[in-house]
Amino acid sequence: MLTQRIERALEATLQRSALSSSPPRLTRAIRHAVFPGGARIRPQLCLAVAMACGDDDPHLSDAMAVSLELIHCASLVHDDLPCFDNAALRRGQPSVHAAFGERIAVLAGDGLIVMSFAALAGSRPKHAERLADAIGILEQAVGPARGIVAGQAWECEPKADLVTYQREKTGSLFTAATAGGAASSGADPRSWLGLGDALGEAYQVADDIRDVLLDVQALGKPSHQDETHDRPSAARELGLEGALNHFNGLITRAVGSIPSCRGALRLRGMVLAEAKRLLPDECVSVVRQMSSGALVSGSPSRVGASNA
Amino acid sequence: MLTQRIERALEATLQRSALSSSPPRLTRAIRHAVFPGGARIRPQLCLAVAMACGDDDPHLSDAMAVSLELIHCASLVHDDLPCFDNAALRRGQPSVHAAFGERIAVLAGDGLIVMSFAALAGSRPKHAERLADAIGILEQAVGPARGIVAGQAWECEPKADLVTYQREKTGSLFTAATAGGAASSGADPRSWLGLGDALGEAYQVADDIRDVLLDVQALGKPSHQDETHDRPSAARELGLEGALNHFNGLITRAVGSIPSCRGALRLRGMVLAEAKRLLPDECVSVVRQMSSGALVSGSPSRVGASNA
Repeated sequence: MLTQRIERALEATLQRSALSSSPPRLTRAIRHAVFPGGARIRPQLCLAVAMACGDDDPHLSDAMAVSLELIHCASLVHDDLPCFDNAALRRGQPSVHAAFGERIAVLAGDGLIVMSFAALAGSRPKHAERLADAIGILEQAVGPARGIVAGQAWECEPKADLVTYQREKTGSLFTAATAGGAASSGADPRSWLGLGDALGEAYQVADDIRDVLLDVQALGKPSHQDETHDRPSAARELGLEGALNHFNGLITRAVGSIPSCRGALRLRGMVLAEAKRLLPDECVSVVRQMSSGALVSGSPSRVGASNA
Repeated sequence: MLTQRIERALEATLQRSALSSSPPRLTRAIRHAVFPGGARIRPQLCLAVAMACGDDDPHLSDAMAVSLELIHCASLVHDDLPCFDNAALRRGQPSVHAAFGERIAVLAGDGLIVMSFAALAGSRPKHAERLADAIGILEQAVGPARGIVAGQAWECEPKADLVTYQREKTGSLFTAATAGGAASSGADPRSWLGLGDALGEAYQVADDIRDVLLDVQALGKPSHQDETHDRPSAARELGLEGALNHFNGLITRAVGSIPSCRGALRLRGMVLAEAKRLLPDECVSVVRQMSSGALVSGSPSRVGASNA
């Protein structure tokens, strides 16, 4: 199973990081940020593409998957800081800064970024010549030019373009997951950018829709963050039904973008299953009913407002 | 000149990072964190050791020097955050969070960590087989196990051991500078750990002494940070004269630890010159006079308190 492989690889990486000699609160905070995980969607996508491409260097594909998840965890820890979302909850449990304080949260995020690069650099792949590409893919996904750091920094600009913002903040790690999975298996990463790009945007659009639809219990984090922080949101820009149509179009594009390879059929099935997980049927029904007017009178006013 | 080589290499790295496409405030904040620099002591030490060892792969030694300076800048940006030192000044100008806000300061530090690893990974060295060692040295210097992240996190523990704390917070980048300079020139990094270790501790002890002696104008940052934040300080633990004797012993150890190599004599001269820069003669005179009682009545009470 992919999920077991990912959890094992993450655990092995944390063990190798010699965290046992770290300051105890930092160690606990880093573990708290990584375990238990969320859907592990980025490392799953990375390994699924690696396997579709033959997965002939599993040490490297494992390291690529781990590095993406550690960077993702780092970004969540820093996003939750008081100066950004000031979120007390993450994945249904206290956020790192809520549990360990702001200083340890800054350092845990920093440490996770370092561990992410170290996981790749120290992976001792069978095909050592693939390593520089893999690190380059990670760097592009995170860096201040076009990666998640850039995406988050667009929030601090007076004017942000929705597409740029979403591509960098969320999409970059999805693109890195598909490109990195391919590169670690010796395939051309450029052929896999389309899949990551479409899935990353779909993931963000689904999040925007769910943010409007769900309350804090169902989501495991405070809803309406986009509204509170005045962030770009497809659900607000396109309306709920427009956002749903956009989501479906992105999934179709994702499925169509999968290059011909021996694992293509399995991967298509995975993408469609992921689409269902991101926007379950009941969410789709509510959006359709709201659009037809059936739910307007009974819907909470905030949904109407967000949909404006 | 070493300093020109370092500034050129830093500028080239920032250019290559494609910061021109970054969010504008993030770009300005990253430049603000890197230029104008401080003494650039870590990259100078790295290149001095590389040159003492032959410097046969200057792309790699440049990248190693740059990566250490970028990490150092990242750590300053995050150390200055409100939740840590809350320092409004750094190197005599507004700190990054004071100039650009806390959110951009968190992201600039994150971006600098990423750029540091990317500088090494993308350096295209002549001797590619040295790259993994170089990245490993950087990781050890920064990581949550024994690097500067760990050192900073010891501040968040109820009890910190002075030697551990100083070694990790300051010493780790000095050790990485000597080990990294050697590794990038094909020499055995382990033979150079002693020099970095002694110089790193000497640097910290000199900082502790100057913190007690100098006011904010002379230092370019608020003095008495150690006292304010209840940090370990050699000047407080050993007294000013004890700390000065310790400093001199460390410089002697540093000079004696330089392995036999063609650049050894020049490097010894550099270390002694650096010692004078760290603790100028006038500082030494003040300490000696205070110890002999000559300055006790006229000394500000805070010096007496810190020296207790």
